[in-house]
Amino acid sequence: MMQLYIANKNYSSWSMRPWLVLKAFHIPFEEVMIPFPKERNTGTFKQEILAINLNGKVPVLVQNDVLVWDSLAICEYLAEQYAEKNLWPLDSKLRARARCISAEMHSGFPNIRNLCGMNLRANLAEKGAELWHESEDLYADVARSDQIFSERPHIDSFLCGEFSIADAFYAPIVTRLKTYDLPVSKSTQIYMQNVLNHFAVKEWIEGALAEDAWVNYLEPYQIQK
Amino acid sequence: MMQLYIANKNYSSWSMRPWLVLKAFHIPFEEVMIPFPKERNTGTFKQEILAINLNGKVPVLVQNDVLVWDSLAICEYLAEQYAEKNLWPLDSKLRARARCISAEMHSGFPNIRNLCGMNLRANLAEKGAELWHESEDLYADVARSDQIFSERPHIDSFLCGEFSIADAFYAPIVTRLKTYDLPVSKSTQIYMQNVLNHFAVKEWIEGALAEDAWVNYLEPYQIQK
Repeated sequence: MMQLYIANKNYSSWSMRPWLVLKAFHIPFEEVMIPFPKERNTGTFKQEILAINLNGKVPVLVQNDVLVWDSLAICEYLAEQYAEKNLWPLDSKLRARARCISAEMHSGFPNIRNLCGMNLRANLAEKGAELWHESEDLYADVARSDQIFSERPHIDSFLCGEFSIADAFYAPIVTRLKTYDLPVSKSTQIYMQNVLNHFAVKEWIEGALAEDAWVNYLEPYQIQK
Repeated sequence: MMQLYIANKNYSSWSMRPWLVLKAFHIPFEEVMIPFPKERNTGTFKQEILAINLNGKVPVLVQNDVLVWDSLAICEYLAEQYAEKNLWPLDSKLRARARCISAEMHSGFPNIRNLCGMNLRANLAEKGAELWHESEDLYADVARSDQIFSERPHIDSFLCGEFSIADAFYAPIVTRLKTYDLPVSKSTQIYMQNVLNHFAVKEWIEGALAEDAWVNYLEPYQIQK
C-alpha cells in the first residue's frame, strides 16, 4: 500500500491537500505522521524527512519504488495512477481551469499563507480583524480567493463541478477564512460550508482536533496555556 | 492558432518556461508580447493582462475558448493536448520525478529568484560573488539545484532523459547561474552547457538580446547607461 508522509494535521496545510484527495476518492493509503518539533530546527523532524526525501519537506508519497514529493506533483501522480476516478474534472475546459487555480494556489497567496497560518483548533477572529485592517496585501489574497470561489459553475457545486484536486488545494484557505473570520461574499460562505461539510475535510479536522502537540513557531498569535 | 502572452524575454522567467516547451516540441503558436512598464505600476501592462486574465499575470495561453494561466498549468495542458509528443517523460517513474522537480521549482527557490532576477543581457558576476558571500539562503537554493541537476540519468542527458517540461522549468535557473557566475559542480556545468545549447533556449536568448526595453524595478544592480 502506498504511504503518505504528513506533519501535524492542525498546522500542515500542504499535508492536508493530497491527504484530502486520497480520502475523497477512496484511494487506500497508509498515513505516516512526522510531527513538527516544538521549537524550530530542534528534534528529529528534519532528519526523519531527509531520510525519505532530499527536499526535506512534507508531504511525500511513496508507492513501491516511486517517491513523489510536493503536493501538486503528488496529486498529478494520483490523477494519472487512478485515471478512472477523475481526480481532475472530466471536462477538458473545467480541467484546465482546475489546474490553473490549483497551480495559482501552489505558488501564490503568500499573504494569507504567511499572515494567517493554518491552525484548525484556534479561533483567531480578533487577530483576523486586526490583520484585515493593517494589511492591504491580505485583502488582495482574500479578494482573489473570493473571486475564484464565486466563479464556480453553480452555487452548490465545488470549484469546477464535482469535488476535485482544486477543492483540496483551496480547503486550507477555507479553514483560514473561518479561523480568522475574514469577510467574504455570501457565495463564498456557501462554498465554505460545502467544503467544511465534505466527509474528507471533516475527517482531517477531527484528526487535527485530537492532536495536542503545540508548535511554538506556528503559533505567532497565541501563548500556550 | 493558440496564443501565448508573455512579457520581456530579458526578464520574464515565467514567460520563458512554457515558451520553451512550445518551441522545443514544435507546437505552432502565436507569441503576444506585453512588455513590462519602465516603472512599477505605470503604463498599461496591468490593464492589458487583466483584459485577458483576471489573475493579472503572464504567461497566459489562449486556445479557442480555453484560457490557461500559470506556467505549470499551461505545461500540463499542453502535455495533455499533445500527448503524442511526450512533453513529460514517457517512463512513469521519470515522469513522476519530472513533475516533482517542476513543482518544486514552481513554488520554491525563493532566494535565487528574488536575489538573482533573470537578466539575460547582463553580466552580474561581481554582484553574484557579493551575494554568494552575504546570503546563506542563496547558497541553499543553489545547492539544491546543483543536487537536482546532478541526479539526471546520464551526464549528457537532460534532467529526466530527453528534454522535457522539467528542463524548461529549470532553464531560467541555468541562465541565472551563468549571469551571476555562481559556483556549481562540474556535472552542473555540463548540464548548463547542454541547456544553453538547446535550440529553443538559444532562440529565446537571441530574442532577449534583441530587446532594448529597460525595466527599472527589475534592474536592482545596474544603472541605465
